[in-house]
Amino acid sequence: MFSGLSAFPLTPMNETRIDEAAFVGLIERLTTAGVDSIGALGSTGSYAYLTREERARVAKIAVEHAGNTPVIIGIGALRTKDVLNLADDAQKAGASGLLLAPMSYQKLSDAEVLAHFKAVAEAISVPLCVYDNPGTTHFHFSDELHGQIAELPNIASIKIPGVPNDPQEAKARVERLRALIPSHVSIGVSGDAFSATGLSAGCDVWYSVIAGLFPNTALELTRAAQSGNHAQAQQLSHRLQDLWAMFGRHNGSLRCIAAGAELLNLVDTPCLPLPLMSVQGEDRTRLATLIEQLHLS
Amino acid sequence: MFSGLSAFPLTPMNETRIDEAAFVGLIERLTTAGVDSIGALGSTGSYAYLTREERARVAKIAVEHAGNTPVIIGIGALRTKDVLNLADDAQKAGASGLLLAPMSYQKLSDAEVLAHFKAVAEAISVPLCVYDNPGTTHFHFSDELHGQIAELPNIASIKIPGVPNDPQEAKARVERLRALIPSHVSIGVSGDAFSATGLSAGCDVWYSVIAGLFPNTALELTRAAQSGNHAQAQQLSHRLQDLWAMFGRHNGSLRCIAAGAELLNLVDTPCLPLPLMSVQGEDRTRLATLIEQLHLS
Repeated sequence: MFSGLSAFPLTPMNETRIDEAAFVGLIERLTTAGVDSIGALGSTGSYAYLTREERARVAKIAVEHAGNTPVIIGIGALRTKDVLNLADDAQKAGASGLLLAPMSYQKLSDAEVLAHFKAVAEAISVPLCVYDNPGTTHFHFSDELHGQIAELPNIASIKIPGVPNDPQEAKARVERLRALIPSHVSIGVSGDAFSATGLSAGCDVWYSVIAGLFPNTALELTRAAQSGNHAQAQQLSHRLQDLWAMFGRHNGSLRCIAAGAELLNLVDTPCLPLPLMSVQGEDRTRLATLIEQLHLS
Repeated sequence: MFSGLSAFPLTPMNETRIDEAAFVGLIERLTTAGVDSIGALGSTGSYAYLTREERARVAKIAVEHAGNTPVIIGIGALRTKDVLNLADDAQKAGASGLLLAPMSYQKLSDAEVLAHFKAVAEAISVPLCVYDNPGTTHFHFSDELHGQIAELPNIASIKIPGVPNDPQEAKARVERLRALIPSHVSIGVSGDAFSATGLSAGCDVWYSVIAGLFPNTALELTRAAQSGNHAQAQQLSHRLQDLWAMFGRHNGSLRCIAAGAELLNLVDTPCLPLPLMSVQGEDRTRLATLIEQLHLS
């Protein structure tokens, strides 16, 4: 489950409700394409913006419509007690794995994050992926802390936020972390622009935002990397460079991917929770052109 | 209400419930001391960690026990629709004012923050304080954006995160913001170590964490500054420098103030929501000594 391509779909919503029909459509699009796992309620799935009840419902729908594809459910929250409840809900919904980011409001210490992961790891019965995303959590993991957490029960993967652009530096970065964690814990790259470099540097999995909307495009890149054809994977990533640049202009991928889903009529417009707004204006037009010209699917 | 000393108490809690009796004790301590306003459910009141129902209950208790002291209620949340509900609850509880920080998970744009404040400002019927706290929200206001928000209906104050240490630079910083906002909007300093400098630089109010636990100590400093005796205010702040240094060592004031309340038996131990932990070890012993030696009260 924590290898290959893990696709993170949107949770389409408006100010009144979650668009369950559109969400089912997104899940089925991923299983049809044949991704290796689905990460529902990731950052792209706006987990942080939903209530416990809404998250339990989304987890249930994702598992019900994913068929044989394993579903990983994001269980992050500010309070440890809320995370424990969310883990319980996700497991009852049939999640194959869980994903936990150390969300913060007050800046967290290493000791607090370790205790938080320990409380959760010891309470669950399915594998957990440690979600390292300083752009949203504002917590910076040291590799030493990753090593300590990776020794806890049920830890199965670490989702790192990216790798250096230079292939040798990327390899050194992955090897440094690899040396500090047990061999059964996989390392996954996120930050889609880093996928080809990360996979060729030794990452076992790509935790992918674009795969949540364009699974075939992301699978082509992943399968090339998995078969050792790293030059082709890099070419496929290079083809998408205008998309990566657009992510950079809009505080990350979410608002672009939401605009893409809206443009393709896979979701209603708008599909993000306010105050978040999908990309508008010139870049929206540019995105429509990119989807067509690059045959993103 | 948005002038003088505004005291921000803890919301004491454990993993099961809010300690309402202890919270009432903290509120009564503030009214007895004679603070100018009470800021319940600020960052120190752990607003971000509580459910809508818990926050409505805390707001109600604060207003009921504050007597004639105006109560400002924090209404921040990630979603605009949740903030609107929280504003409604706070107003129904009898809040005299509201406090709104642009909490974020996904990094916010200026346009998103402006639309967020506009939706809230136009929906409320009591004055709102704009809460600028990049340390917790990770949103950085430009003075120009402050100016735009300050023109919205019901905006009455801006809580800034601190001022430069140099008195002339502090004055210039406050004057720069003052020039961009209507005269009816007050400017308040927070970051307790900056209080004396901020008040002498022209801030109208001190939004104070230590006042939530040591209201008499904070009032002495505030009244000195208000009467134009800035040298005395600076001396009183200088006396507290070991406390400011301790805040610096523990990611801010919250974990120290929680330890102080625990040491004084004003709350049960622990009183913070996990994963947050009050200060332990040597600094906890040092804090006990400081409280005694400096007669903090």
